[in-house]
Amino acid sequence: MSKTVEILAVGTELLLGEIVNTDAAAVAAELARLGYASYRQTVVGDNPDRIREAVREALRRSDVLITTGGLGPTCDDVTKDAVAEFFGVPLEEDPVVRADIESRLGGRGVRVTENNFRQALVPRGAVVFRNSRGTAPGLALRGESGEAAGKTAILLPGPPSELEPMLYEQVSPYLAGLSGEAIVSLNLHLYGIWESTAEDILRPLMETGVNPTVAPYACENGVRIRITARGADEAECRRMCRETAEAVRSTEAGKYIFAETEGAGAADQVTPYVSRLLRERGLTLGTAESCTAGMIASRVADLPGSSDILLGGIVSYANGVKTGVLGVDPAVIEKYGAVSEQCAAQMAEGARRVLGCDVAVSVTGIAGPGGGTAEKPVGTVCFGISDKNGTETKTVRFGERSGRDKIRRRTVAEALMYVAQRIADRTDG
Amino acid sequence: MSKTVEILAVGTELLLGEIVNTDAAAVAAELARLGYASYRQTVVGDNPDRIREAVREALRRSDVLITTGGLGPTCDDVTKDAVAEFFGVPLEEDPVVRADIESRLGGRGVRVTENNFRQALVPRGAVVFRNSRGTAPGLALRGESGEAAGKTAILLPGPPSELEPMLYEQVSPYLAGLSGEAIVSLNLHLYGIWESTAEDILRPLMETGVNPTVAPYACENGVRIRITARGADEAECRRMCRETAEAVRSTEAGKYIFAETEGAGAADQVTPYVSRLLRERGLTLGTAESCTAGMIASRVADLPGSSDILLGGIVSYANGVKTGVLGVDPAVIEKYGAVSEQCAAQMAEGARRVLGCDVAVSVTGIAGPGGGTAEKPVGTVCFGISDKNGTETKTVRFGERSGRDKIRRRTVAEALMYVAQRIADRTDG
Repeated sequence: MSKTVEILAVGTELLLGEIVNTDAAAVAAELARLGYASYRQTVVGDNPDRIREAVREALRRSDVLITTGGLGPTCDDVTKDAVAEFFGVPLEEDPVVRADIESRLGGRGVRVTENNFRQALVPRGAVVFRNSRGTAPGLALRGESGEAAGKTAILLPGPPSELEPMLYEQVSPYLAGLSGEAIVSLNLHLYGIWESTAEDILRPLMETGVNPTVAPYACENGVRIRITARGADEAECRRMCRETAEAVRSTEAGKYIFAETEGAGAADQVTPYVSRLLRERGLTLGTAESCTAGMIASRVADLPGSSDILLGGIVSYANGVKTGVLGVDPAVIEKYGAVSEQCAAQMAEGARRVLGCDVAVSVTGIAGPGGGTAEKPVGTVCFGISDKNGTETKTVRFGERSGRDKIRRRTVAEALMYVAQRIADRTDG
Repeated sequence: MSKTVEILAVGTELLLGEIVNTDAAAVAAELARLGYASYRQTVVGDNPDRIREAVREALRRSDVLITTGGLGPTCDDVTKDAVAEFFGVPLEEDPVVRADIESRLGGRGVRVTENNFRQALVPRGAVVFRNSRGTAPGLALRGESGEAAGKTAILLPGPPSELEPMLYEQVSPYLAGLSGEAIVSLNLHLYGIWESTAEDILRPLMETGVNPTVAPYACENGVRIRITARGADEAECRRMCRETAEAVRSTEAGKYIFAETEGAGAADQVTPYVSRLLRERGLTLGTAESCTAGMIASRVADLPGSSDILLGGIVSYANGVKTGVLGVDPAVIEKYGAVSEQCAAQMAEGARRVLGCDVAVSVTGIAGPGGGTAEKPVGTVCFGISDKNGTETKTVRFGERSGRDKIRRRTVAEALMYVAQRIADRTDG
């Protein structure tokens, strides 16, 4: 039975929507990785009564409470007070923390006030996580008696630049020590299938799967199927995940799987997948983009070190650039329109010639909200690919109601997967 | 006395840290704008018991509960069930919602299952917010008797692309109707000044300002100063905001203000500002992008109707594209490097010539993590602008520790503001 954890974020800025709670996501992902069960996250403002109430509620419900924020010099240490009160221990000055604060602030020529030294007060018996980026230390406290017996509270600073290194370097090992169980998640990334279709296909596996569990998620670039196993050790969990992954691969959904990742794994896998294929085959890529206006090229360049596969691109938003730079025949645009497979073909061929790349992909479409017609509604996008084996094209109609942003983002993923498919099909090396 | 609101986000992905709770931030910001008091946010997973418990707790504590997520076809409608139960009303099929689902899914050729139609079940008496981007409608329910008397629950879909338009277009007016008080926020958008500097300058206004309040925020594209007034009616609030805005404009920070918006206003104002300037002066833009690889052009094309100002761009990631397409002299790259003002100048001139645009902006820089040198560390970016009056260049060093993504995003904003400044300086029309 894994320990249950709650996350309590303290910060009025969160309640006002001025900042997004990335701390909770960072801590939660780490908890999931370590096999803790997390059923609740709470946000309260910098208010003593509400913080105290939230701390009490959470520690009564769960084995471990992790708080983020509310430790700054102006916060009156309410979170620390509330936790110390629940655990029935006094706050005492920690000389190491005091020295850290002095050297940190003194070194920057900041006048150190008594408020700053309140950050050196630590509940008796707490483990101190030193803060390499700020003055508020992290703290961990285990209860020994009363209603705090067997409970653990971990207090972390709010700024992500302070919390994240502390989390990964110090808190994570502490949590690993607290827990006894291993957990491993394996993600299968699919493209070209709807989430609801994947779910229909996988329902038998989802319904029988208690350990490992199987769950599909819709994401920006397709569908992700997460397999999660719990067990005595990671090797055992990994073996269980692998077995279930094979079962998924043997269904109708199997042929849509293009990548596999371990861990949280919600990040875009399309770009790394295409980049790896290009690199493995020693091919360079170029783009000719109309409606996406540079998003495809910049997506490839999001990954560091992409200069060995990406030569560049032509953003041909205006027809004059399609004809003048890419060499599209004006008669083709006249006859078929700029959003046509004929134009996409010539754009791809032109990009390959002008940029000197091995593979060029082109897109020309109607992202809306204006510009749609009965024959070519908003969401109609034509794609072209040109390489030494020739040129191919296709047309995809994204839902008009998806809106401009989503149509353009989905066009990027579709273009990259079109490249991947073309390369994967090549048998000439 | 303003009504109290809680936000409850439903989603196991949030508890696993796979996604960040941007929904809560979007809703919270809107609540703050409308003058609601929000003291707590909660996240629970897709678990019937815990959802039911969280719904009950929240509605007992607060006047209004806003839930996000947990309305998808695969979620068993637990959130809807829990709310209907608290309000003591049955779920009934809404024919309009059913027709929306049929037309939406049918139009995409998706097989409509009974699961899909569960989304058409609506608590009796609920106000329906139609979903223009998905199948799950939003719902608002007011309680009339028992413990639900005087309470309001608002249920919103989880995907931000569905939630956000619904929030701004439908939920916000509904909430404004529920509340008695008027509140207006005015945002002043600044570029070229640090948040801490703006704060130092505005401290007197911030300290004396209770109504309106004055608060600076660092954001992607500079600094935003939000002025918020509460009053009997909007006209009165607007007058108060305007007075305070004039006081801000008369400070040293005034000269950095480039845009003013009413409302939530955290969105990018740089692109609309540059686009408006280009349009007003009848000028077309082209880009030559190295490290941003198309992000500048695509940012301009994010706004619908940008085809009258954006001709296109050349993504010259490889030096061969800089020389071959843009006509940069190989000797310049040899002598000064690809990241140099000399290269940026020739890139801008080349883009203007090749694309036939009135104004061309170029960027070439080191986004990292590799590629930095002592002389040109990671974060060094050279910019060029060329128009009929000639070419100018500059070099900006973004902080190396910002990381690749932030360096590239800040480069985009800097390039666009560079264009804006160049155009604004033109006196020849």
